[in-house]
Amino acid sequence: MSARRFLVSPGQLKSELIILEPGEAGHAQRVLRLQAGDEIWLLDGLGNQARAVVERLNPMLCRVRERPPWPSPRPRIIMLLAVSKNQAMDILAQKLTELMVDEIRLFNAARSVAEAGGSKNDRWERLAGQALKQCGAARAPRFVAPPYPNGNLDEVLGQAPPSRLERALKIAAYEGEQKTNLAQIMPLQAPEEVWVIIGPEGGLSKEEIELAQERGFVSCRLTSSILRSETAALVTAGCLRCHWE
Amino acid sequence: MSARRFLVSPGQLKSELIILEPGEAGHAQRVLRLQAGDEIWLLDGLGNQARAVVERLNPMLCRVRERPPWPSPRPRIIMLLAVSKNQAMDILAQKLTELMVDEIRLFNAARSVAEAGGSKNDRWERLAGQALKQCGAARAPRFVAPPYPNGNLDEVLGQAPPSRLERALKIAAYEGEQKTNLAQIMPLQAPEEVWVIIGPEGGLSKEEIELAQERGFVSCRLTSSILRSETAALVTAGCLRCHWE
Repeated sequence: MSARRFLVSPGQLKSELIILEPGEAGHAQRVLRLQAGDEIWLLDGLGNQARAVVERLNPMLCRVRERPPWPSPRPRIIMLLAVSKNQAMDILAQKLTELMVDEIRLFNAARSVAEAGGSKNDRWERLAGQALKQCGAARAPRFVAPPYPNGNLDEVLGQAPPSRLERALKIAAYEGEQKTNLAQIMPLQAPEEVWVIIGPEGGLSKEEIELAQERGFVSCRLTSSILRSETAALVTAGCLRCHWE
Repeated sequence: MSARRFLVSPGQLKSELIILEPGEAGHAQRVLRLQAGDEIWLLDGLGNQARAVVERLNPMLCRVRERPPWPSPRPRIIMLLAVSKNQAMDILAQKLTELMVDEIRLFNAARSVAEAGGSKNDRWERLAGQALKQCGAARAPRFVAPPYPNGNLDEVLGQAPPSRLERALKIAAYEGEQKTNLAQIMPLQAPEEVWVIIGPEGGLSKEEIELAQERGFVSCRLTSSILRSETAALVTAGCLRCHWE
């Protein structure tokens, strides 16, 4: 699956004839040794894909044969994620793509040790694009980073639906939660959307979890151990994707 | 939680007076600036822990106050894991510790690109030990690596209980499985043990999955995307830990 999937820009995918950009074409020729006549898949990272055939090398020209729709997984997962250190964010950019998280909205938590900034988006999008070619999905997460103007939890909470709608499950992973766990609050039928808050390394502050609860988020614990922030993000996304698969 | 937890050797934890080894003591003094009279926790990595008080620095001498039992999570999770590349194995050593996986038995799969060898155990145990101090659990996974003599799947399967016992759930994560998913096969009550097979980057071969099924393992898919091997391991362990929490 990974071998013959290539990224193109969204505008390109509407054409019948598409020229691969040099980085993608180089990989196709040098590593995969593709030839004229070989079949490949093209992705725009936004959920669109096309089956195509290589017509010519140098530059690498492909003709689209069909554009089968990609069935978006349900529910949509929107993760409100406290910014982590670079290494953890790199792991998340890759693995949350594999788990088909739809949006990652970063915020600066009270206890964040790193700070969000739009400048990292390019790096995460590149890592997500690489993961996308391997994992068989057609859409990478959309990364949204502060400033919003200041990028705290209050602001990203304002982006979520206003109340506990039927169609949107809103949860906050919180290690201080004693009563409710994640398995208990996943309904039998997949909701349209799940909004998930994942706090920073030091956890959400008391004020932050209370604010989330006021806005209709249900706090739940994951495991009896204390997970690193990126592990909590991966495990939550994994549980949500596997539960209604 | 992470700040004041230190590793000691299993034998040491039985004593009333314990001298921390220099690496742990140095961290305690230079980074945490602990003083005589401060309370700390000691772990042996095998599930035993003790609350202790610093009596003296240089060498750092601690007196045990109590040895509260650590409630082992249920089910026990035994992961039969195809060897991955070093970077993926490092991530797993850390994160499967956080998720309180009990044993990691490595095997050389038909499509493995890396090879297991006992020499890496020291590195994984060190990474697991670091994770253990942060995650609040008291036991790190036991790493078991080939040769067994040759370390293929057949051999590690022979280590699992013989049939589908009530007390042991046996599953194989398999992307080719169309009918059964992980959520469907987790019973209401936690079994005593869950044995999980996670294949290599290229997936389990047809022969390997058939062999596992013959031995009573149920194949199940995780998500509709194709997960990297280490992501599959994390997601499966996370789902199992969260489901009966």
